[in-house]
Amino acid sequence: MTETTSSPALRTALAYYQAWTSHDLDRAMSFVADEIVCDAPAGRLEGAGAYRAFMGPFVQILLESRLIAAFGDDQTAMIMYETRTVPVPNAPGAECLTVTDGKITYSRFIFDRAPFDAARAAAT
Amino acid sequence: MTETTSSPALRTALAYYQAWTSHDLDRAMSFVADEIVCDAPAGRLEGAGAYRAFMGPFVQILLESRLIAAFGDDQTAMIMYETRTVPVPNAPGAECLTVTDGKITYSRFIFDRAPFDAARAAAT
Repeated sequence: MTETTSSPALRTALAYYQAWTSHDLDRAMSFVADEIVCDAPAGRLEGAGAYRAFMGPFVQILLESRLIAAFGDDQTAMIMYETRTVPVPNAPGAECLTVTDGKITYSRFIFDRAPFDAARAAAT
Repeated sequence: MTETTSSPALRTALAYYQAWTSHDLDRAMSFVADEIVCDAPAGRLEGAGAYRAFMGPFVQILLESRLIAAFGDDQTAMIMYETRTVPVPNAPGAECLTVTDGKITYSRFIFDRAPFDAARAAAT
């Protein structure tokens, strides 16, 4: 795992990551600004409520995660991680986060929806 | 765009990125080790030939790209970017690259295959 240390944005990003990967969504949301904007694969999410509704189901199916790399500077952090989930055994993600005053205000979120779509199709 | 400067791995990653986003696949491959291993959404690719066969078709459909963020240290670089492609107008990607002696030896590559699958299905 690669990680830079002296970045305030990265400290927030890692605290958020540790929280949601520990299934503590409330704590994860404490690092998310009320007015967060997140550009996710399915489109733009606006506001903490929409973001929580996006992350909640994912946290519920999360079995395990491992940080691949994490970097940051004053305002921006980037993390990449593996996850193992109930429907998809290998589901990595990458997030580029803008952090202001200890809160994530913008997120660019990348993951591959294809294996989740395939698992959903197989289950129906 | 966020970018750290003093990282040798990042210098290689950015040179590689500038090359393939300029449609210069030969130059991009000059930064890729013969024995590269790449964990991509569809599975593991081994060797420069397999990597070139993976990137070539993508470079052909690439219309435009923009770096979102780029970080690195001695051996690792992480880049995230937007791309606009012929079938998919908004196709971001993230790469975490291990660089040894100026060559990319390992790549963890994340993008969303779902819109490419949808475009392919719509075309048939």
